[in-house]
Amino acid sequence: MYKLVLIRHGESQWNKENRFTGWHDVNLTETGIAQAKTGGQLMKEAGFEFDLAFTSVLTRAIKTLNIALEEMGQSYVQVQRHWRLNERHYGALTGLDKAETAAKHGDEQVKIWRRSFDTPPPAVDENSEYFPGHDRRYAHIDEAILPRAESLKLTIDRVLPYWHDVIRPAIQSGQRVIIAAHGNSLRALVKYLDGMSNEEVLELNIPTGVPLVYELDENMHPISKQYLGDADAIKAMMDAVANQGKAG
Amino acid sequence: MYKLVLIRHGESQWNKENRFTGWHDVNLTETGIAQAKTGGQLMKEAGFEFDLAFTSVLTRAIKTLNIALEEMGQSYVQVQRHWRLNERHYGALTGLDKAETAAKHGDEQVKIWRRSFDTPPPAVDENSEYFPGHDRRYAHIDEAILPRAESLKLTIDRVLPYWHDVIRPAIQSGQRVIIAAHGNSLRALVKYLDGMSNEEVLELNIPTGVPLVYELDENMHPISKQYLGDADAIKAMMDAVANQGKAG
Repeated sequence: MYKLVLIRHGESQWNKENRFTGWHDVNLTETGIAQAKTGGQLMKEAGFEFDLAFTSVLTRAIKTLNIALEEMGQSYVQVQRHWRLNERHYGALTGLDKAETAAKHGDEQVKIWRRSFDTPPPAVDENSEYFPGHDRRYAHIDEAILPRAESLKLTIDRVLPYWHDVIRPAIQSGQRVIIAAHGNSLRALVKYLDGMSNEEVLELNIPTGVPLVYELDENMHPISKQYLGDADAIKAMMDAVANQGKAG
Repeated sequence: MYKLVLIRHGESQWNKENRFTGWHDVNLTETGIAQAKTGGQLMKEAGFEFDLAFTSVLTRAIKTLNIALEEMGQSYVQVQRHWRLNERHYGALTGLDKAETAAKHGDEQVKIWRRSFDTPPPAVDENSEYFPGHDRRYAHIDEAILPRAESLKLTIDRVLPYWHDVIRPAIQSGQRVIIAAHGNSLRALVKYLDGMSNEEVLELNIPTGVPLVYELDENMHPISKQYLGDADAIKAMMDAVANQGKAG
């Protein structure tokens, strides 16, 4: 039997400003830092020990992981960063807030992007500061596979090879793993592990900074799944994420 | 031509209390956090970009690195942690302050340990909380090679295999490397790179949180070596470290 912990990064500056963030590299707010600390404390109290950690190449997830590991007294755990664990790329919506998006594209269109599984937003222009090809952390990646805009479906298609090729073999070799990532890259993993339908995953709202603990059998099928911490507080956080209307 | 940056961790809680620290895992003080930020700012202003970072398995070095990379906007740089970059193991002196050590072992003996290149302090008892065999981060290491007490010579012997096997090949493959470590593990690297004698390295006092930049030729011989930042401030820090009498 294996255990796996998923944790979504704490509140970022652009979460707070309600702007589409995606691959833009914003930092945590003070609230986000406090959420990461609480997540670490919950894992410490529950006695978790990790051998290996995975995260994205975005500061808000990396910092959430660093803070949580420090709270646990486990800063020495090896950390693997990878772009495939990044947030969904919001394309030309990146940087816009809800009101700007509605004004530019209309309420109906925004609803489609928010509620659709497989309709990506408009692509980011290759001259935009938000095109990943301008960022040296993606310089080793073929531009042909760098996202210009992703639906949730495209995000899942991009995340899962890293699960199959790297994370799953690490867990099966007996390493105790934590993954610190983003609303939509974690949705990809949970959809896959739980065998959710395309409709079900759209209803899934993962709270920030709350460790989600899976127990997996030898075939990596979930035996159990639970959030650490106070159930009512977690419910309130999930509702808050759902009401915010976007995960970013 | 290659560049390599070394940075010593900022002030830790036990530096402040003037206690022998070694492999004991203490955190940075507020001063230490500020030193790490300043180090990151200096590298940012000088335009450094890194591809790979190395550090020890001790929180104070890892956190110094995390803070410096965050200041540079380069949290995405891969970080390799390794026990061979740890501080010198102070054996049975671990946890003692200067006065306690002198009272227990006498001033003359303390002078020998402090000024000798190859006389280790007394070994830590295997029942002591400071014996590394009790710490899960060293569980994969043969107990026969886990240090019970190290002279500077033994520290150097333990650090250099990691340089030769891992760090040097990474630099030669073209990766731009930063190493965040400790007073004595950095002394080991500087002694090797500069071809210092055993006597010279005892006079070497590396200031905390100040990036030390090497330019290396294709054979990894130093072309130049300089600290980033204000020369007078660095001189004052080196004198302060020298006067403190121990590096920990």
